[in-house]
Amino acid sequence: MPYRAPVSEYRFILDHVAGFGRVAATDRFSEAGGDTVEAILTEAGKLCETALAPLQRTGDLQPAVLENGVVRTTPGFAEAYAQIATGGWVAISADPAHGGMGLPLTVTTCVNDMMSAACLSLQLNPLMTQGQIEALEHHASDALKAIYLPRLVSGEWCGTMNLTEPQAGSDVGALSTKAVPNGDGTYAITGQKIFISWGDNDFSGNVCHLVLARLPDGAPGTKGISLFMVPKFIPDENGNPGKRNSLSVVSLEHKMGLHGSPTAVMAYEGATGRLVGEEHGGMKAMFTMMNNARLGVGVQGIGVADGAYQHALAYAGERRQGRTPDGSATILGHADVRRMLATMKAQTFAARAIALNCAVALDMARATGEADWAARAALLTPIAKAFGTDTGIEVASLGMQVHGGMGFIEESGAAQYLRDVRVTAIYEGTNGIQAMDLVGRKMMDGGEAAFHLIEEIQEGVEAARAALPELAGAVWEAAESLREGVEALIGADMQDRFAGAVPFLRAFALVLGADAHLRAAMAEGADGPRRRLARVFIRRLLPDHAALLAQAGAGAKDLYALSAEDLGA
Amino acid sequence: MPYRAPVSEYRFILDHVAGFGRVAATDRFSEAGGDTVEAILTEAGKLCETALAPLQRTGDLQPAVLENGVVRTTPGFAEAYAQIATGGWVAISADPAHGGMGLPLTVTTCVNDMMSAACLSLQLNPLMTQGQIEALEHHASDALKAIYLPRLVSGEWCGTMNLTEPQAGSDVGALSTKAVPNGDGTYAITGQKIFISWGDNDFSGNVCHLVLARLPDGAPGTKGISLFMVPKFIPDENGNPGKRNSLSVVSLEHKMGLHGSPTAVMAYEGATGRLVGEEHGGMKAMFTMMNNARLGVGVQGIGVADGAYQHALAYAGERRQGRTPDGSATILGHADVRRMLATMKAQTFAARAIALNCAVALDMARATGEADWAARAALLTPIAKAFGTDTGIEVASLGMQVHGGMGFIEESGAAQYLRDVRVTAIYEGTNGIQAMDLVGRKMMDGGEAAFHLIEEIQEGVEAARAALPELAGAVWEAAESLREGVEALIGADMQDRFAGAVPFLRAFALVLGADAHLRAAMAEGADGPRRRLARVFIRRLLPDHAALLAQAGAGAKDLYALSAEDLGA
Repeated sequence: MPYRAPVSEYRFILDHVAGFGRVAATDRFSEAGGDTVEAILTEAGKLCETALAPLQRTGDLQPAVLENGVVRTTPGFAEAYAQIATGGWVAISADPAHGGMGLPLTVTTCVNDMMSAACLSLQLNPLMTQGQIEALEHHASDALKAIYLPRLVSGEWCGTMNLTEPQAGSDVGALSTKAVPNGDGTYAITGQKIFISWGDNDFSGNVCHLVLARLPDGAPGTKGISLFMVPKFIPDENGNPGKRNSLSVVSLEHKMGLHGSPTAVMAYEGATGRLVGEEHGGMKAMFTMMNNARLGVGVQGIGVADGAYQHALAYAGERRQGRTPDGSATILGHADVRRMLATMKAQTFAARAIALNCAVALDMARATGEADWAARAALLTPIAKAFGTDTGIEVASLGMQVHGGMGFIEESGAAQYLRDVRVTAIYEGTNGIQAMDLVGRKMMDGGEAAFHLIEEIQEGVEAARAALPELAGAVWEAAESLREGVEALIGADMQDRFAGAVPFLRAFALVLGADAHLRAAMAEGADGPRRRLARVFIRRLLPDHAALLAQAGAGAKDLYALSAEDLGA
Repeated sequence: MPYRAPVSEYRFILDHVAGFGRVAATDRFSEAGGDTVEAILTEAGKLCETALAPLQRTGDLQPAVLENGVVRTTPGFAEAYAQIATGGWVAISADPAHGGMGLPLTVTTCVNDMMSAACLSLQLNPLMTQGQIEALEHHASDALKAIYLPRLVSGEWCGTMNLTEPQAGSDVGALSTKAVPNGDGTYAITGQKIFISWGDNDFSGNVCHLVLARLPDGAPGTKGISLFMVPKFIPDENGNPGKRNSLSVVSLEHKMGLHGSPTAVMAYEGATGRLVGEEHGGMKAMFTMMNNARLGVGVQGIGVADGAYQHALAYAGERRQGRTPDGSATILGHADVRRMLATMKAQTFAARAIALNCAVALDMARATGEADWAARAALLTPIAKAFGTDTGIEVASLGMQVHGGMGFIEESGAAQYLRDVRVTAIYEGTNGIQAMDLVGRKMMDGGEAAFHLIEEIQEGVEAARAALPELAGAVWEAAESLREGVEALIGADMQDRFAGAVPFLRAFALVLGADAHLRAAMAEGADGPRRRLARVFIRRLLPDHAALLAQAGAGAKDLYALSAEDLGA
């Protein structure tokens, strides 16, 4: 059951839902017209289908291992990585000044989606490098940029993010890794970092760690944190990998999934690092890196959802079981199987449209410098991350269910999607943290960006009323309820907001998804697959928004009334 | 983080929610008063805490293996099984005539819940034996009963269920295993069976397979199926295990979880079997076995939910991260963590109450012979199975989320709950099949049993209105919506019913869960933990019922309008 890259689907969403034409109309991205983008995505799709997808199960069965301090990666990963790198796919949005193609992030988003569907554990490697490139482009000195960026962009070197420590996860300000100036412009970095994705490998010329640490005069908490580049091999004056740095992989984690991606405990013992950005300005640089990565992780969920969907659809199209009411030979003819597949497809479309809307907003913000676009992107990022990854998990679980008993058997491949994707709701800021970001930081504008977006949705609805009155009416009502939900939220104190953050984010996502389906349905002109899918989403999935908004508005009081003793602690 | 058996929780539900007093008031179960039951559950709880819980992770790390045709079970399982058997815990509800204690199924349900929480993969073994005992008690000849029942009840022998074949899963009527009369009262059984839980072991004196097969004159489909007892060792005239039968374990499956439970492909090559029940009457006997097992599997989900909850609560009560608004030292003080834990606890309570209501109905049906009780049990069984197992999955997944990054690391144990419990939504009839049973077969009475239950719920609500007006009002409205949902359903054709079956079942479960919470809240008398938990369930989880009922009533048309081509097949 081979993976097929959904290039025409991306093209459709870009043209008819996400308004990518606006990106291509800017000076900055004037070369990224629809046909060019489609040609690029077609090439990337071939790579995913032929080189990455065959490694999906290999990564699961033959995880990376640590042997005498050296990480040995899954057989085949080195070769596939080389194809990614030589094809220029690591960082197509990077600045051409450093070897990138300067393509819109929207195109990167589609490529990441395909790579995630094909082989999530390998895709995580370039995703980490992309985040590092972003951080260096914005915050590094020219000297650092000159050494690192061309090699990261080409894929010759790989990048990682070192944030977490055992006592400092969501609370990154609690970190204790130290940085001491060496007097020569470098710093000695000492500490232990955990959960470092692709903390090492045996196929890149260097592994470049961006490490958060505290200088001797750094204040406690997040304000005293600085960011350092700490490479495995310290580059010589020509930028070639030189002396081995004082850092090591202590161990690799045994994880539920994503076995092909080595998750390392890293030890830094006076390792040589260079400052990225300002002293004590590490959080700012980290947020640059994380913002990019949050959309990237959301897209991991969406890619896996697509992979799991294609996988389940292929199984259902072959599996014969019982008599079907519509005379289909296979279980595709059973109403409940069709309900599951339709749900999977409709929800994946919605999540993908949200992610691409977010990417378009990021590109427009870059190309135009307009604050409204930046605010739109900031608003959509946590939604794209949390709803994208929740969709990955839910769709992968439905995919197992479509498989029946075979779904639990590892040989079928259905279970791996769920095991692999489960972490995406946790890393890069748990989905709870994303939701708190949405109802907290992203509503500090008094809800302006949210209201603006809801207005746009309702304008789209008005344009659809004549052709699709029932669907348009449902989306309009839901958008109105969301507006009321936002109004209630911005009037609430932070604890009440946080208590309802997760259901609020999901309600927001359902309304955005319904808007995307409605636009897709309108683009079709007459009754066709997109209208039929829109009906499924708007009639069956959108109605959840009401209960979610009720929960979002329920406040913190009854949760805190339930004491630790009440919970049984 | 040790498992603690929730004996006082069972006692509370039995006394104040499930009306177990009615069972103890019958002649048949007059010895099973509340204090006796509590003493029994306390003993079982100790066994689970001390002997089973320590094996949970062992089973995952050291799965059963097949060596030269012999199944070698997880180290420690044989000893723990011996404790289960010698303690008399395999089948406490079995007929005293065959060595059982004749206790209500309600008590078995509580014991199964605890065992599932402690070590699901081992618990599955006695669960299979329980189903076999049930089938033999109802359908076997006295001669078969005399040989098998005492040894199964004592745990000396184990039982299995052999239904599935590669081409016959949900469609059991498609099976091709053959049974040919040998002329001496025995039959030669030939065929392959798959997904046989505990298909073999190295710790019981015999493994007794109940095998569905077709006689030479058996009609195609389910009507031509007969049930046979096919033991690993054929008992001699004294009932001792004699000659090795012509059956073998071909292979064991590699599964997502439940590694400690060997899932076998079984080959029967002219194996000697004896008929259980009538010729061509196999489906009837199978349903006896499966009905019992369906409640048992639902309870597996509930047990795992409890285990995962206790596990996550213990972690949250130790993990320090960030400043909490209520001044708690640990993440228990964060609103979203509290929301997750409260959801886990409230939903687990609801699922457990539904399962125990089902068990009480089964006991009342047995003790009184009243058809109303049998109808109640039949109605509740698919709900208990599907909602119990969905709850296991959802709560285990939330438990991972509470753990943050550690949740994905296998050493934490959080992921195993999800990996283990995932299959419970699939086996013993997928949850889709359960839902179709609910809206199909269980509504053939024109909804009478459902309406009767909803009336009881509304009577309970009326009694709560004065003390808890807000909660009572919400439950009354939800029950009314459910009544309308049932009315719409029985007026709909079968395809429309099936298309909405899964959301309908969940809506029904939410209303039943709300009813249980309301009864618990009323039993408390004044504001306390149960009222506070009821508020969480009724305000936050119950509101979903509206969207679920909307989806349940959406019909099949839009699903079938979406063609196989539309889906991408």
